[in-house]
Amino acid sequence: LLRDQLEDVHPADYAAALTEFTPTELWDLLTALPRAEQAEVFGYLPTSEQVKLAIRISRRKLAPIIRQMSSDERADLFNRLSAEQRDTLLPALAQAEREDLLRLSAHEEGTAGAIMTSDYALLPPNLTVREAIEVLRLEAPDKETIYSSYVVDQSRKLIGVVSLRDLILAPVSMRVDDLMNHDPIYATVDMPQEAIATLIAKYDLLALPIVNAQQQMVGIVTYDDAMDVAAEEATEDFHKTATIGKLESSVKHAGIGLLYRKRVFWLVVLVFGNIFSGAGIAYFEETIASYLALLFFLPLLIASSGNAGAQSGTLMVRALATGDIKLRDWGSLLGKECIVAGLLGLTMSAAVIGLGLWRGGPDIAVVVAATMMLVVLVGSLIGLSLPFLLSRFNLDPATASGPLITSIADVAGVLLYFSIARWYLGL
Amino acid sequence: LLRDQLEDVHPADYAAALTEFTPTELWDLLTALPRAEQAEVFGYLPTSEQVKLAIRISRRKLAPIIRQMSSDERADLFNRLSAEQRDTLLPALAQAEREDLLRLSAHEEGTAGAIMTSDYALLPPNLTVREAIEVLRLEAPDKETIYSSYVVDQSRKLIGVVSLRDLILAPVSMRVDDLMNHDPIYATVDMPQEAIATLIAKYDLLALPIVNAQQQMVGIVTYDDAMDVAAEEATEDFHKTATIGKLESSVKHAGIGLLYRKRVFWLVVLVFGNIFSGAGIAYFEETIASYLALLFFLPLLIASSGNAGAQSGTLMVRALATGDIKLRDWGSLLGKECIVAGLLGLTMSAAVIGLGLWRGGPDIAVVVAATMMLVVLVGSLIGLSLPFLLSRFNLDPATASGPLITSIADVAGVLLYFSIARWYLGL
Ligand SMILES: [Mg+2]
Ligand SMILES: [Mg+2]
Ligand SMILES: [Mg+2]
Ligand SMILES: [Mg+2]
Ligand SMILES: [Mg+2]
Ligand SMILES: [Mg+2]
Ligand SMILES: [Mg+2]
Ligand SMILES: [Mg+2]
Ligand SMILES: [Mg+2]
Ligand SMILES: [Mg+2]
Ligand SMILES: [Mg+2]
Ligand SMILES: [Mg+2]
Ligand SMILES: [Mg+2]
Repeated sequence: LLRDQLEDVHPADYAAALTEFTPTELWDLLTALPRAEQAEVFGYLPTSEQVKLAIRISRRKLAPIIRQMSSDERADLFNRLSAEQRDTLLPALAQAEREDLLRLSAHEEGTAGAIMTSDYALLPPNLTVREAIEVLRLEAPDKETIYSSYVVDQSRKLIGVVSLRDLILAPVSMRVDDLMNHDPIYATVDMPQEAIATLIAKYDLLALPIVNAQQQMVGIVTYDDAMDVAAEEATEDFHKTATIGKLESSVKHAGIGLLYRKRVFWLVVLVFGNIFSGAGIAYFEETIASYLALLFFLPLLIASSGNAGAQSGTLMVRALATGDIKLRDWGSLLGKECIVAGLLGLTMSAAVIGLGLWRGGPDIAVVVAATMMLVVLVGSLIGLSLPFLLSRFNLDPATASGPLITSIADVAGVLLYFSIARWYLGL
Repeated sequence: LLRDQLEDVHPADYAAALTEFTPTELWDLLTALPRAEQAEVFGYLPTSEQVKLAIRISRRKLAPIIRQMSSDERADLFNRLSAEQRDTLLPALAQAEREDLLRLSAHEEGTAGAIMTSDYALLPPNLTVREAIEVLRLEAPDKETIYSSYVVDQSRKLIGVVSLRDLILAPVSMRVDDLMNHDPIYATVDMPQEAIATLIAKYDLLALPIVNAQQQMVGIVTYDDAMDVAAEEATEDFHKTATIGKLESSVKHAGIGLLYRKRVFWLVVLVFGNIFSGAGIAYFEETIASYLALLFFLPLLIASSGNAGAQSGTLMVRALATGDIKLRDWGSLLGKECIVAGLLGLTMSAAVIGLGLWRGGPDIAVVVAATMMLVVLVGSLIGLSLPFLLSRFNLDPATASGPLITSIADVAGVLLYFSIARWYLGL
């Protein structure tokens, strides 16, 4: 009865519910499921939970589940195990599975190879539609998807793709190679996973075929994994724009040591960056001593510069990541930014001029307004250009974080402000 | 010949190539394609290009393409047209199409209704598998997908989902309601699009059925549109964390007026926020006048506080958006943050103590180190808590932008620094 009720519970929900239990209870509940679903639910468990089970449960019991996992998830689990655990696991697999697992898990993290699955449907070109559907029917239980099939020649080179939709709509005696798309979108095994997710989103693909350097079919990346990759890459960029290094774990489960290590580097670097602002202030100590009222405006001037810069920097970092803009667009964007930042600077000058009059009199009001105009412009142009500059030197544009831009804008702001003040006030 | 070569070009690539031409040339190239592909390529054009064509090309010529567009893309185009253009277009459509278009385009932007398509495959529960496959074969050309079919009762209430994979694997005489999943994942038409994309990613769905308040089937959202929504929502959050309002256009195509409007609001608000930092400095003018050397350390102390706060704030904003953490996790995250920020503060104190000795002597070194420790802790806790606070009051946590956190941390930094200095230096 319970089994009947649970039948239609989605494996993702079943897996989420299981994580509330201890590993032993979890194992009992998992193995109460029909065999076919065990692997699916196990695949939805967080990899950390999978590893816990892999350590505790005897190889003999675990092997049937691992054998039925989809090949990409199996490779992920394998990569998290210790060398010792791997050696225990491998003999439990059949020769072909073992070789497949070793092949898949050998790809570098972050590449197409590391997220692809080898459970894809292959068709020879000379089958008829009727034969092809029969092949897919037989193979379906072991394939990640049968909605896209990949047609290869004798040397396993990818020569076409055919969808199940087209197979079902076509006359049953038509040949696969007359029906297939001869010019399919594909990617190579060493491409970055970010580019893979972009291709899948751009072409609305269910799965993207992956080939090796010899154009031979080695795997597919499915849309669901592309969605996870896109989210993961966005998270990485979010964190980078706040000077946090790539976290391999979720924030919730990240340990104190990990969080510390990922945060400390840029914080310390930026301390030293900000010494230049301090030095700038020290350099103008006499100006400041004679007009202490200038200090009142220092925080809002340098903050405004940094904020405008963080805006334009973030616009560029994200647009470069989504492919909305390319390196070559820098010139036209710079022109537009000059006008936008000019208008923003004018608005903000107007916003502070009254404050300047009130706190410092007409002379200081002029200095503050002029400085505001300039620092907003300078901050914006720094923010706009830094991501392009990094990209140009093959660095990740997301390194142009808000804090980095702000620090540079701060230095520029201090120097501009007091230079203008010294010159205009005739000190 | 050319037609034959172009046959396997992906419609997304064809559409991208077309955007290089003038509207008239574009139209000629588009209509050179076979009729079925015209609508598909047209659907891949940016909506702005679609609108341009809709304005220039006579209704009689455009109608056949618009009739063949997928219903969700047609509704998007319709929503971009002027009232006048809509009135020209509607009579060109058949009664049923017209009603469908008006129904789809009536949903509020940002909801499930606004991204769903009505071209889904329906199956009655009492069909056999053989009959169901035959129905799908006949209807396939008009459906967005036939890989998931939706089973409804006489009152159109959703009672099940069945995949083409299961249909193909099942015995041909089995009934659909014996095969279908009786407890499908679904969503209601007014749910935010962000939640829809999250459901599709969580359950690895090809399409998510959408029902109205009476549980009646009204549409599906497909995985490809969910990918676009996820990217769009991430972009919105990226922009928000840099105090930029929601851009309806791409950065590349955004006009100067739009960019100005989306950026100016928070810049001006933060100017006034930073007045408090200025006031803090003014309040401590005497302390500063007697120890001008203190000013050297001001930028790096307040920047460090803001940077640490931007880090923890960004970690929370993104983790709340992805569902990694929930409101109730605030307590445990706060505990962890206290330790992490404490360690970061210690490290950064150590980093500046030498500088303090060199530039200001032992007393100032003590003040600077103690302040650094405190401001990093305070900044981090502000950054961590602000997103939760906003969320608690049903505001978007992404409003807790780096610049906002930095401004608050700046005020706290100024007050802490000079208070400690005045007290420790006995001024
Ligand atoms: Mg992997
Ligand atoms: Mg797409
Ligand atoms: Mg997978
Ligand atoms: Mg997956
Ligand atoms: Mg990356
Ligand atoms: Mg990246
Ligand atoms: Mg819409
Ligand atoms: Mg998923
Ligand atoms: Mg669509
Ligand atoms: Mg789409
Ligand atoms: Mg939104
Ligand atoms: Mg949001
Ligand atoms: Mg600052």
